[in-house]
Amino acid sequence: MSEVYAARRTRLRDRYGASHGAAALVCGHANVRYLAGGAPPGAVLLLAPDQDVLLCPPAPAQESPAGRTDDALRLVEAGESGDPAVAAARLLHTGGAGTAAQSLAVEEDHLTVSRHRALGAAAPGLALTDLAGAVEQLRVVKDEEEVSRLRIAAEIADQALGELLESILVGRTERHLALELERRLVDHGADGRAFPTSVATGPHSGRRIHRPTDRRVEEGDFLTVGLGAQYRGYRCSVARTFVIGTSPADWQIELYELVFAAQRAGREALLPGVGCRDVDRTVRQRLVAAGHGEGLDACTGHGVGLEIMEEPQLAPASMGKLDACVPVTVGPGVHLPGRGGVRIDDTLVVRPEADGGPELLTITTKELLAL
Amino acid sequence: MSEVYAARRTRLRDRYGASHGAAALVCGHANVRYLAGGAPPGAVLLLAPDQDVLLCPPAPAQESPAGRTDDALRLVEAGESGDPAVAAARLLHTGGAGTAAQSLAVEEDHLTVSRHRALGAAAPGLALTDLAGAVEQLRVVKDEEEVSRLRIAAEIADQALGELLESILVGRTERHLALELERRLVDHGADGRAFPTSVATGPHSGRRIHRPTDRRVEEGDFLTVGLGAQYRGYRCSVARTFVIGTSPADWQIELYELVFAAQRAGREALLPGVGCRDVDRTVRQRLVAAGHGEGLDACTGHGVGLEIMEEPQLAPASMGKLDACVPVTVGPGVHLPGRGGVRIDDTLVVRPEADGGPELLTITTKELLAL
Repeated sequence: MSEVYAARRTRLRDRYGASHGAAALVCGHANVRYLAGGAPPGAVLLLAPDQDVLLCPPAPAQESPAGRTDDALRLVEAGESGDPAVAAARLLHTGGAGTAAQSLAVEEDHLTVSRHRALGAAAPGLALTDLAGAVEQLRVVKDEEEVSRLRIAAEIADQALGELLESILVGRTERHLALELERRLVDHGADGRAFPTSVATGPHSGRRIHRPTDRRVEEGDFLTVGLGAQYRGYRCSVARTFVIGTSPADWQIELYELVFAAQRAGREALLPGVGCRDVDRTVRQRLVAAGHGEGLDACTGHGVGLEIMEEPQLAPASMGKLDACVPVTVGPGVHLPGRGGVRIDDTLVVRPEADGGPELLTITTKELLAL
Repeated sequence: MSEVYAARRTRLRDRYGASHGAAALVCGHANVRYLAGGAPPGAVLLLAPDQDVLLCPPAPAQESPAGRTDDALRLVEAGESGDPAVAAARLLHTGGAGTAAQSLAVEEDHLTVSRHRALGAAAPGLALTDLAGAVEQLRVVKDEEEVSRLRIAAEIADQALGELLESILVGRTERHLALELERRLVDHGADGRAFPTSVATGPHSGRRIHRPTDRRVEEGDFLTVGLGAQYRGYRCSVARTFVIGTSPADWQIELYELVFAAQRAGREALLPGVGCRDVDRTVRQRLVAAGHGEGLDACTGHGVGLEIMEEPQLAPASMGKLDACVPVTVGPGVHLPGRGGVRIDDTLVVRPEADGGPELLTITTKELLAL
């Protein structure tokens, strides 16, 4: 794997022009992991003109900070109660990281004003520039190892969800169902949950994010479950809506079929070269035409990877186009205040039509099950 | 409760000189909650010269953003995909928040460089200053309502821990024990865990932070469990170390007694007016004298409240003194690489001697139990 990380760092160097005496400091945690392999929370990566240094916060009596870090990296532990970003600037300033750099590109999206100032003070004379979203852009298209981790994460989420469906649900609280799902994710080999599990019953159902309450599952409820596993750093997302009891009401069937059709249209639109906002429009126009334009989510789906929400966004104002090997979610929903609603979410990988089109990672059935 | 939040905002205004046409923008999540009551993630609080405005991120098809927010606050939802901090600056600039302000104090510790720049651009002509840790300082001394929430959080953690001790432990993995503890926290009424639960067996025991692995509990192990509950926003911390099997080895008894004595000395030193570093020294010198100076934690304990780690720090370089009604943890530990170790952590509230001295919130026994 070491070559993978080194190759990623080389691609980043190409982007910001490392050849002209420029260094870069990566602080966003997912960005550091992407470029360095495993890295403890708070670690930062310095790409100096002729060496790469991973600076870790002091970690007394803790786990080894290195984890699965790329062996090709030099490891430095920041001194007592020190900020690794400031330690990186100091290292550059004192020549401790090889050839002097004239400028340092930092991630202004991931550095607070206070840290940025401390960093500037530690390396006077160094021009601080903005690396902007360069690493996030590199992360958009995944390699097959990354897709394979996402595939396993999706399998784990499917297993946890499948087991839940086999158990008795009526009378149990949202909070308990959510905790049980999270336990099952770990049982099946997840590092943990990809995001807080959402279990929404009755009037709560259909919401995009719902913090589980003590409400119990009742006969006749819609039940929306949204969860995801994290596997070796990679996070997926799946949501399904079920009916509790034997026969769904007419309004439930109608709403379900609408959201299902919109979600399917979105999934089928996922091809290389298609505009992100066109996928969003495909989904959104069906919901709007059925009179559910009010209160729709700002986006229909988004990239996933080391973070549960990454580029690209499937939203009305998104400018980019989809590429092959980009994993995205498609997860529209409709929530009718006081009544509840439906949400259906999948994680897929964009693939060319020649390869069979979009690859569905979360394969739990999307039939309207009555549980 | 509304008056409590309004009074806190008045104290903050006094600090930064609101009378001279200065406004303040609070972005740190715990700080916003402290001053506004419940607030959704991402909300920011604007203290304009003559009104207080809570700006929330757009929340379509989600829970009501308001929660238990103070009714005296004006609520504004930031527009489509808007940053509430930028929306606050715009509101101030356009006169939408009453009397114009000449300056805006922002939390440079909680704003990224990118957001700070966007905020400046949204309100040209407004001088941006630094609010620094003004709200964090207000939060150090707790009122009785806050202490009462911490007391309940501690009771919940004690209950979860007590139940674990009654179950069979040998053969179970660290990960499962941690998940079970977290489920029990919620069963007993916690909003959730205060921090990731640490379960460390055998050679892992004694670490301050240990991410649970698949290692199983074995006869003869030290077992260190560190957990905390979050109750209505307030977080506590407790850690205990046990021996698995019937009779602890001599080295285990010796190490346990050392850490126990050091921790007790630290607890007993918690009185108003005592220097934070003096408490730390009291604990640290015992561990150093016994030959365990290498690899000790940077701090012996710290404040708790809306965050699990707050001011004050009990550390060698801390300058402040303890006040009454400040909740702190005292949690020293020794970890012997390859063998394991002992950690004992409590949450207490500093009280004057006339009131009986430090109030222990986490009351799980600190005898060396053989389980």
